[in-house]
Amino acid sequence: MPATRWGDPAYATGLPDGVRDLVSLVFPIADRPAREDVTVPAPRLGDEQIAGLRGIVGDDHVVLDDATRRRRTRGKSTPDLLRQRSGDLSDAPDVVVRPASHDEVVAVLGYAQEQRIAVVPFGGGTAVTGGLVADLASGDLTGMLSLDLGRMRGLLGIDTVSSTATLEPGLRGPEAEALLAAHGLMLGHFPQSFEYATIGGFAATRSSGQSSAGYGRFDKMVVALRVATPAGEVRLGASPSNASGPDLREIFLGSEGAFGVITEVTVRVRPLPEVKEYEGWRWSSFAAGADAMRALAQSDLLPTVLRLSDENETMINLADPSGIGGEGNAGCLMITGYEGTPAAVAAKKAAVTAALTELGGTPAGSEPGEAWAHGRFNAPYLRDSLLDNGVLVETLETVTFWSNRENLYTRVKTALEETLGEGTLVLCHVSHVYATGCSLYFTVAAPGGEDPLAKWLPAKAAACEAIVAAGASITHHHAVGTDHKPYLTAEIGEVGVDVLRAVKRAVDPAGILNPGVLIP
Amino acid sequence: MPATRWGDPAYATGLPDGVRDLVSLVFPIADRPAREDVTVPAPRLGDEQIAGLRGIVGDDHVVLDDATRRRRTRGKSTPDLLRQRSGDLSDAPDVVVRPASHDEVVAVLGYAQEQRIAVVPFGGGTAVTGGLVADLASGDLTGMLSLDLGRMRGLLGIDTVSSTATLEPGLRGPEAEALLAAHGLMLGHFPQSFEYATIGGFAATRSSGQSSAGYGRFDKMVVALRVATPAGEVRLGASPSNASGPDLREIFLGSEGAFGVITEVTVRVRPLPEVKEYEGWRWSSFAAGADAMRALAQSDLLPTVLRLSDENETMINLADPSGIGGEGNAGCLMITGYEGTPAAVAAKKAAVTAALTELGGTPAGSEPGEAWAHGRFNAPYLRDSLLDNGVLVETLETVTFWSNRENLYTRVKTALEETLGEGTLVLCHVSHVYATGCSLYFTVAAPGGEDPLAKWLPAKAAACEAIVAAGASITHHHAVGTDHKPYLTAEIGEVGVDVLRAVKRAVDPAGILNPGVLIP
Repeated sequence: MPATRWGDPAYATGLPDGVRDLVSLVFPIADRPAREDVTVPAPRLGDEQIAGLRGIVGDDHVVLDDATRRRRTRGKSTPDLLRQRSGDLSDAPDVVVRPASHDEVVAVLGYAQEQRIAVVPFGGGTAVTGGLVADLASGDLTGMLSLDLGRMRGLLGIDTVSSTATLEPGLRGPEAEALLAAHGLMLGHFPQSFEYATIGGFAATRSSGQSSAGYGRFDKMVVALRVATPAGEVRLGASPSNASGPDLREIFLGSEGAFGVITEVTVRVRPLPEVKEYEGWRWSSFAAGADAMRALAQSDLLPTVLRLSDENETMINLADPSGIGGEGNAGCLMITGYEGTPAAVAAKKAAVTAALTELGGTPAGSEPGEAWAHGRFNAPYLRDSLLDNGVLVETLETVTFWSNRENLYTRVKTALEETLGEGTLVLCHVSHVYATGCSLYFTVAAPGGEDPLAKWLPAKAAACEAIVAAGASITHHHAVGTDHKPYLTAEIGEVGVDVLRAVKRAVDPAGILNPGVLIP
Repeated sequence: MPATRWGDPAYATGLPDGVRDLVSLVFPIADRPAREDVTVPAPRLGDEQIAGLRGIVGDDHVVLDDATRRRRTRGKSTPDLLRQRSGDLSDAPDVVVRPASHDEVVAVLGYAQEQRIAVVPFGGGTAVTGGLVADLASGDLTGMLSLDLGRMRGLLGIDTVSSTATLEPGLRGPEAEALLAAHGLMLGHFPQSFEYATIGGFAATRSSGQSSAGYGRFDKMVVALRVATPAGEVRLGASPSNASGPDLREIFLGSEGAFGVITEVTVRVRPLPEVKEYEGWRWSSFAAGADAMRALAQSDLLPTVLRLSDENETMINLADPSGIGGEGNAGCLMITGYEGTPAAVAAKKAAVTAALTELGGTPAGSEPGEAWAHGRFNAPYLRDSLLDNGVLVETLETVTFWSNRENLYTRVKTALEETLGEGTLVLCHVSHVYATGCSLYFTVAAPGGEDPLAKWLPAKAAACEAIVAAGASITHHHAVGTDHKPYLTAEIGEVGVDVLRAVKRAVDPAGILNPGVLIP
């Protein structure tokens, strides 16, 4: 199983001329050195510990070589890439352990607890908020093992009557979809990390995909979970919804590996769509387009895909140079997508078209929609080329209620522009909507300067503080990790944090699971 | 504020002739003595403690008289009514305390913690699973106060842009709807307890209403909560959905007063519907009707109301004598209801009608639908008259995935029939559907015999054991209380129970909140 190729020079997408030209309007593109070939620190685990782990999963699945450890170091945020480029591999795991089953996960957790080894569950490695960085100091731990779930990639069962499927956590997005497609079924979860990220990771981080308007967030697709914790196994989800006390599924969803290792996920599935149609709409302003999205969401009339770029993103369209930022731009571009049976697509499209026309939108035809669909997973590849060219580029996201959308947008944009200074481009889109609110997804580009990491970190902090000051959530779908941890208390309060700590003590009394992640 | 009138002789509905005739076909109706006028036990709290509570909420809002204490004793399950009728008021609270604000709730909790007094939050008093019975022995407690939230009945704010409203917990269903209707808005939560049950109770028990197909369960309507716990205040819900770790709203929803007192609930609201249309459909069998419901749910094509009675309920229609069990019955009756704008209702009705026709349903016109809508809140009144006539009648409910529906139905029905013996009538309906499953709501009637309570309890236990054996949830919307507590471990596991205990210790270290409820 290859590690994710985001950040891997072999898979970097060359900077398209169009983007190069547009970016060069704003700041000069410089040549940057390629990342150094550096070695990882010496493993902290002893031979006996390695032998113990080999006894559980087999010799072949306890991996110690530098290349594997390097690929399991941190995730794929821009700071992660910059640290890797600068040769800082201080967060490398001591060993990569690849269990094949729930029972092997249980055994590894038991051994790690006994030996006081930190366990960092690893799926696709696409974490962008520092969720793969263990803090050994916090718990008197002797080392860190990366628990690679890549051997647990089965489709364990399909219930066609209930429209559910049970999946193993190591399945990547395309693998899960291919297994389901063989039965005429689909999960319908397409985050930008789709190609690499895994079912377990989607659940552990409350991922949300590009078809969330039609198919919902990943956490809403989950009906049952099996979790291995150091305190024992947890099986949750005897029914779709119930009144059997607090919904404990919602405690393990979003737990980011700190409460247990998710070993099975049962999700709602759907028939494969017979028809897929994507199209564009043009709006006079970001606010006008957002108001239209709100009207659709509040009348429960949502297409499968619904996205809106702000004026800057519509103009530059850094995230997808091939498509929607084409000629004749003015105002803001919205993408609407419809998937399903021909009859359902026709009915929904007619109703949405009538509503958007009434609200003042201008149809922009199918070309922008198809272009978006074609390039939807490309942005992270492009980022590597931008970094190569001295452009600092990163994304961040948040979510709030509709009445706070404009305030949040202005605060975050201003914070980024003011902190990063001249030449900064802030782009934004809305790609996830609810009846009561929406996400805001920002892409930031700025000249990297001598030390891009030192330049970015204060900007990220300023953006986070702006989100907190606006009363919004610190993350819509990137999760907390270590990067957002300092801001979680403001969102859930001291008592909320105490509840998380109490749950942690109950399921992981020795504190071996992803120490330092999530919980302040 | 009157206590709920279910079980109050003054508000009992006389047994309609039609029901009397139908019931007498099955078992003879006997005359039963009216409940005795009994006195409540002497209060266990001392004068100093009463004075302390008066100092917080004022003299007028610390109520000690027998009538008030009697009305706050237990809830409204049939066992609750039977115990009350038999003169057993051993679970009466020592005092009823009526705070006017979040801050007064906080102060009462602080005082109760200091004095080791159990606190049982009280909303509408419509609990049917023993959720209002405190177990003082478990925590070395000196007495029990009923925390009546009836003075906290404000509409604290409306956000018309985000379509949310913030409500106080003591608002009864009709009061909340009336306050919202003044703004052209609606919550749309209509459980059978609608007339008495409160916003706080809906949240604390994960209530689900008769329009759940269109408007969702109550827990899905909630976007934010304010909770007073002995450990401090919790405010949750910075956004509709997010990835800021576990969703702690889902820990306080369904917490049944054991984790804190919900003092504010922010919910999604909707425009008042311009049109409401209800109609009937007839199906050859319960299975055929249920398959049709499943098809609608799995194609995301749900009307606002969707209910299906099994053959027995269609025939007898004990739950609503005035309507749907009319002449010419054969097979099973389904009710479909549509609410919204004229255009939306017409479009949805056309699509659902086409689907149900294709699936083999026979339209039964608007009469059964309107009859259902007219009598929808009447069943609990009728129950009192049945009890007066020596008929033991009770309801229970569960929820499972679609593929397990028939197994669950057969197991529970058989368990009830076998335990209660000859002359037992078991009726069932499906009134809440999901893409992946549905609820089953049973109404049971049997001759009461000499000791109806002694007759019922083994039947309830057998039904619960059947639910557990079928792998379903012990409750879809009645909550856990004390009645379902013995079965919760089977559903969420030992580790799940440990998580609940850990949360309890974090938010209520002295164990004063609803002791003995919910947590095994």
